[in-house]
Amino acid sequence: MPPLGLGVDLGGTNARAAVVDTDTGEIVAAHKEPLRDRSPPRVVEVVSHALREAASAAGVDLAGVRSVGVGVAGQCLGATGVVLNAPNLAWRDVPFGEMLRTAIGVPVRLANDLSVAAWGEKRFGAAKGIDDVVLVFVGSGVGSGLILGGRLHDGAQGVAGEFGHVKVRPSRPDTRPRRCGCGMTGCLEAYTSGMNVAARVREEVAAGAPTSIATLAGGDLSRVSASLVDDAYRGGDPYARALWEEVGELLGTAIANLVTILNPARLILGGGVLLGCPALAAIVQARFDAAVSISATTGLSVERAWLGDDAGVIGAAVLD
Amino acid sequence: MPPLGLGVDLGGTNARAAVVDTDTGEIVAAHKEPLRDRSPPRVVEVVSHALREAASAAGVDLAGVRSVGVGVAGQCLGATGVVLNAPNLAWRDVPFGEMLRTAIGVPVRLANDLSVAAWGEKRFGAAKGIDDVVLVFVGSGVGSGLILGGRLHDGAQGVAGEFGHVKVRPSRPDTRPRRCGCGMTGCLEAYTSGMNVAARVREEVAAGAPTSIATLAGGDLSRVSASLVDDAYRGGDPYARALWEEVGELLGTAIANLVTILNPARLILGGGVLLGCPALAAIVQARFDAAVSISATTGLSVERAWLGDDAGVIGAAVLD
Repeated sequence: MPPLGLGVDLGGTNARAAVVDTDTGEIVAAHKEPLRDRSPPRVVEVVSHALREAASAAGVDLAGVRSVGVGVAGQCLGATGVVLNAPNLAWRDVPFGEMLRTAIGVPVRLANDLSVAAWGEKRFGAAKGIDDVVLVFVGSGVGSGLILGGRLHDGAQGVAGEFGHVKVRPSRPDTRPRRCGCGMTGCLEAYTSGMNVAARVREEVAAGAPTSIATLAGGDLSRVSASLVDDAYRGGDPYARALWEEVGELLGTAIANLVTILNPARLILGGGVLLGCPALAAIVQARFDAAVSISATTGLSVERAWLGDDAGVIGAAVLD
Repeated sequence: MPPLGLGVDLGGTNARAAVVDTDTGEIVAAHKEPLRDRSPPRVVEVVSHALREAASAAGVDLAGVRSVGVGVAGQCLGATGVVLNAPNLAWRDVPFGEMLRTAIGVPVRLANDLSVAAWGEKRFGAAKGIDDVVLVFVGSGVGSGLILGGRLHDGAQGVAGEFGHVKVRPSRPDTRPRRCGCGMTGCLEAYTSGMNVAARVREEVAAGAPTSIATLAGGDLSRVSASLVDDAYRGGDPYARALWEEVGELLGTAIANLVTILNPARLILGGGVLLGCPALAAIVQARFDAAVSISATTGLSVERAWLGDDAGVIGAAVLD
């Protein structure tokens, strides 16, 4: 039997547990459950159940496992297992690590979902064998995972990599300051995440902004997405063009600053906004090239994430 | 005899070598020489001589030393010992590590001066015993040194920590884009270093900006400095006020972003602009507080650098 690890990916809508071959990163068995009730005790039950199902499918005795890794879409104090803030779960200061440990009788190691994904990519994916890796994710949220000197850098409190919450200043002086889900204004995420872009377009269309996006959405503003903005941009829509120039500059410059500071050997890009919007991606690339410190790009390679939605459970299963 | 290490601090005007007690960080002997001629072969001679003088004063046989550490005010490829770019020495792509090794017959370990200073502070100064440390320096230049997970993080190529070259956007739309010594525009250093602030004030005073700074400088614009701007600010000078608000916001926000990304346990502030300009420091602090991700400040403490001008030789002497 190969060496096996157990990992959990805890998002806002589902919990997914997997048994992973820790030599190859292959998923041996997995079990996914929806989170209907997000109260911490109920989520502990759901995660415990998913772990038991996955373990049983793989023929593993959960009680005999050395530890379980969990990637959480939120800020985690890695050392204590406390989830400080997980907006998608509406959690604040939840001692989830300890609660889950009590429920399953096995030590639990918690980390942010993007830290875990970066670790998965480093072990088995787009950064295999590379010691200095920055993963940038722009999807419904914005964040990063940092592998520095061959190790997961999750910081003194476990909240490193909060790339979505660096403060930025848009180039157009008429852009209103936007409030972020974290409660602050000026966060990169507030201007560039898929959810926030869609919300902004809806607001601005409702206020009369001239754009083809509403038509592309079939008149149903709830269908507005970053992907539709990208379609509109490629169709020559001036509103989409101005919006993408702003979003692309903010993202390209912020990613460049991250590379200038950290000098990674590999930059991994993930998330539906970065990977699913080709027009935006081209602007991000151009703005990155214009802003990054040249010396930090010597030996830098850029890759798309390989592991996709599996990065979380795989990385969690091999958390040290 | 205590365990001894040899370190060199190579700036733009002087080379200083020291023999350091690697248990306590105490300087046992030191020798400083001015760099009259900055050609690499001449600098190798000066550094070799300084090392021999310091070693001899401490009763150490230089040939018997395991390695010598050198902190260089510039970008260094740590692995190869090449100085990529040292504006103060007017060097580009100088294989200084190899040249010095040949001259002294001892392996040489090169790193950026602020990386070395951060390492010195971590070993013996303001961050002793702390594993996640960010040192931010704002003096004639702007830069940072990063200790992450207990180790010096100098990146894949040895150029991590180039904090002075993150790109920023000033809040006043009438501020002209400023070119940095590195050749790019929009670098934090171009707006906030002591040298660049002084140059900007001189330009703007020459162009008729109404300010008391010229009077404070006794009419001699060559005496303009960040410290004089701070004096003017505290005297109620509106020009100095607007300038410091802009510089303070840029610095405070950029430092906050660094902390948000890296989640250090200790932030060390150094350099004449940060430590010698109390009015500016108060603005930086306020802007930092307004911009930093709250979760990254849990357990964060801020200290002034302890080792001052000795941080370089001390850190270099104990480079791993």
